[in-house]
Amino acid sequence: MANHSCDVVIIGSGPGGYVAANRASQLGLKTICVEKAELGGVCLNWGCIPTKALLKSAEYAHFLAHTEDYGFEVTNVKANFGKVIERSRGVANQMSGGIKYLFGKYKVEKVEGHGRIAAKGKVEVLDPKGKVTDTITAKHIIIATGARPREMQGIEVDRKNILTSKEAMIQNKAPKDMIIMGAGAIGIEFGYFYNAFGSKVTIVEYQDRILPIEDKDVSRELARSFKKDGIEMITSAKVISAKPTKTGVEVVIERDGKKETLKAEKAINAIGIQANIEGIGLETVGVKVEKGSIVIDELCRTNVEGIYAIGDVAGAPWLAHKASAEGIACVEAIAGHTDKGIDYNNIPGCTYCIPQVASIGMTEEKAKEAGHKVKIGKFPFTANGKAHGIGKTQGFVKLVFDEKYGEVLGAHMIGPDVTELIGEIALARSLDATAHTIMKTIHAHPTLGESIMEASAAAYGEAVNI
Amino acid sequence: MANHSCDVVIIGSGPGGYVAANRASQLGLKTICVEKAELGGVCLNWGCIPTKALLKSAEYAHFLAHTEDYGFEVTNVKANFGKVIERSRGVANQMSGGIKYLFGKYKVEKVEGHGRIAAKGKVEVLDPKGKVTDTITAKHIIIATGARPREMQGIEVDRKNILTSKEAMIQNKAPKDMIIMGAGAIGIEFGYFYNAFGSKVTIVEYQDRILPIEDKDVSRELARSFKKDGIEMITSAKVISAKPTKTGVEVVIERDGKKETLKAEKAINAIGIQANIEGIGLETVGVKVEKGSIVIDELCRTNVEGIYAIGDVAGAPWLAHKASAEGIACVEAIAGHTDKGIDYNNIPGCTYCIPQVASIGMTEEKAKEAGHKVKIGKFPFTANGKAHGIGKTQGFVKLVFDEKYGEVLGAHMIGPDVTELIGEIALARSLDATAHTIMKTIHAHPTLGESIMEASAAAYGEAVNI
Repeated sequence: MANHSCDVVIIGSGPGGYVAANRASQLGLKTICVEKAELGGVCLNWGCIPTKALLKSAEYAHFLAHTEDYGFEVTNVKANFGKVIERSRGVANQMSGGIKYLFGKYKVEKVEGHGRIAAKGKVEVLDPKGKVTDTITAKHIIIATGARPREMQGIEVDRKNILTSKEAMIQNKAPKDMIIMGAGAIGIEFGYFYNAFGSKVTIVEYQDRILPIEDKDVSRELARSFKKDGIEMITSAKVISAKPTKTGVEVVIERDGKKETLKAEKAINAIGIQANIEGIGLETVGVKVEKGSIVIDELCRTNVEGIYAIGDVAGAPWLAHKASAEGIACVEAIAGHTDKGIDYNNIPGCTYCIPQVASIGMTEEKAKEAGHKVKIGKFPFTANGKAHGIGKTQGFVKLVFDEKYGEVLGAHMIGPDVTELIGEIALARSLDATAHTIMKTIHAHPTLGESIMEASAAAYGEAVNI
Repeated sequence: MANHSCDVVIIGSGPGGYVAANRASQLGLKTICVEKAELGGVCLNWGCIPTKALLKSAEYAHFLAHTEDYGFEVTNVKANFGKVIERSRGVANQMSGGIKYLFGKYKVEKVEGHGRIAAKGKVEVLDPKGKVTDTITAKHIIIATGARPREMQGIEVDRKNILTSKEAMIQNKAPKDMIIMGAGAIGIEFGYFYNAFGSKVTIVEYQDRILPIEDKDVSRELARSFKKDGIEMITSAKVISAKPTKTGVEVVIERDGKKETLKAEKAINAIGIQANIEGIGLETVGVKVEKGSIVIDELCRTNVEGIYAIGDVAGAPWLAHKASAEGIACVEAIAGHTDKGIDYNNIPGCTYCIPQVASIGMTEEKAKEAGHKVKIGKFPFTANGKAHGIGKTQGFVKLVFDEKYGEVLGAHMIGPDVTELIGEIALARSLDATAHTIMKTIHAHPTLGESIMEASAAAYGEAVNI
């Protein structure tokens, strides 16, 4: 058994853990990162990154079915699903290898195994058999164990016919038909992906619309698009049970008080995620947990001195960039470099189907509920030159301003490349920019981003392109 | 002959003129716009917009040659060049139709013909035969006549074998080989386009690098990419003459003091543009012209009271969005709505080849020349997860900061979708954002835009992903 000693030990190497580790080391803290699986966590290996690879192939699959729109005649298009998956795995492996390189560069020590808090200032590392292989003493312990697909009673995930997102990204073929339980970002992305590769997709959602956390206008626009693509969406429907059968799956849902049975070859459980709080010694030291997540303050401190939590294990929003930002803020505070936490009101969220969805801040509805008098600026991509140039005119930019001073309360976008456009609004909100500043900032022509300028102008009656 | 009277008459309906017209009308000014050709000017009809349509097809042509990278097997790919052109024309016509709709909506009167200033407060409109068909009296005259491809002695543009950008976008096939004179944005975009459709392209540039107004690192990276694509680039070479021959063109160039003759099927003259200052009555009223452009002040006023100029006719940068911004500022000032002109130091510039190029503000070199102590932050797309996901890892984001307070002096980007990413920096500069604010603004993961955050961190030694 090896004994280690360091300033900071981090359990988990996902986008929270590895970023915190590199930054801690950069700030002069001796840092150890404990990881039991692949470096990079779910994000790099089984989440954000490999799915983006899959979705790019899906986008091309869509193009290959419409090449004549752009002046090409193509026959004999064959999607090699195995190669699509292989490419995705290749990208994931490459990114995971990147973390290894960065740990070397930043002198972060990696210890392999399952990290568990043994006492304040002490982490034990266990091998797969449960044997303690390493002990680490550290002044600061950061829990970055992430989350996993949420389990729900009645949904019998067998990972063969009823899949989690993990298995959904390594199938060897697109099934004939597929039921997706949950219309959040994960369900929507897989729905788009499998539909693009020929599966008949049915998405079941408990709320009354798909992407229920997004602005209603966005949900509606996406539903319209998905419908056109042939995706079936059943909303306001509860999944009662999902069971693997010999030939596929049977999902019983209830809507309008009536039960129905849906059948398909495969199903994906995408109803949510749950934090990995088990077996990591939280009870041993008395770390406070509420509603399944570790409770932290603005600098990611738990109730136990010297123990911190970042990322998914510390609650919503379950986003990689929130985890990274918390990781940086947490170790910068430990190093005495900052006493400011992150701004939880200014975290963008993206869904990478086509059309893409991106948002930040309050929806129109929430802004009104919060008592704001709002000005709404909406600009459709049908009025944007670049969108016409690239042949992708679906969707819009919707901006929510506080009427009085014109500050940006929220932005809700659906359409081409909006996951990239949202960055401008994040910065705008960091700087308390007003509608006036945005509309007077010269945006390059022709770009999709002009729509942000136009939507700002529209909110104040100054639009000249719609 | 018809007589009209209005508050503002605008000669030209390009992105300067039509935008100014709509905004003027919106501000309560009775507005007439005079146009002799298609509504929308060069930008919508023969510039920005139709070329973006062509370039999207070129991007897909490139993909179709590499479908296996994304898991597809495709045989019998046939590029129907005529359809590619047809699509581009369709997009241009649709956008031009959009202006007609907007003129109707905003109650801008359109008068067809060649506008010429007859006196202060008076514009005559001529038909193609030179007969005056309309006279317009107006308190304010805005000249928005734009520019055209620059003519140069020795280059015999016959529009059949030696083309301007206009003919270059309506060829019925891609020539076997093509010489492009000038490696600015226009030359580069056509070079990329024709190469993608199989032409052997040679670009000749007088300066020592392609895209000479961009940061040197960007020029170098683009040259590397173009070379890989099989595009030949001859820099530090002067075009002595270009002549159509029976079978094509002969271009004589001089480099290192030696003359060489290049031959090809077609050539494009892309050495620059010149303002349309002729035949519009400038001499009649004594409007001051310098170096071929109308001289204006910060509110687009010429030396003659009541006469204004906006866009290309008023000089560099020759960009549609500069024209639109000037148009808005000009009429807002006329309406007493503002007394502030546009910020000429904060105008983005984009080139839409692949990899795309986008920049704003000072290059590293210019910043140093201007006496700034700079901090440089560079982040390569090879270290960006989204770039890997979409399989486009070429290029980088380079940010130039003033060392002391970290304000953004310039941004220089080459790579996937950078023409969209530049918007964030334009806004950052509008708001005097610092590197610190940019790096602490949470950018969505995985997005290409994270590279902006990472480059900011890199400049100050806080990068954790490279």
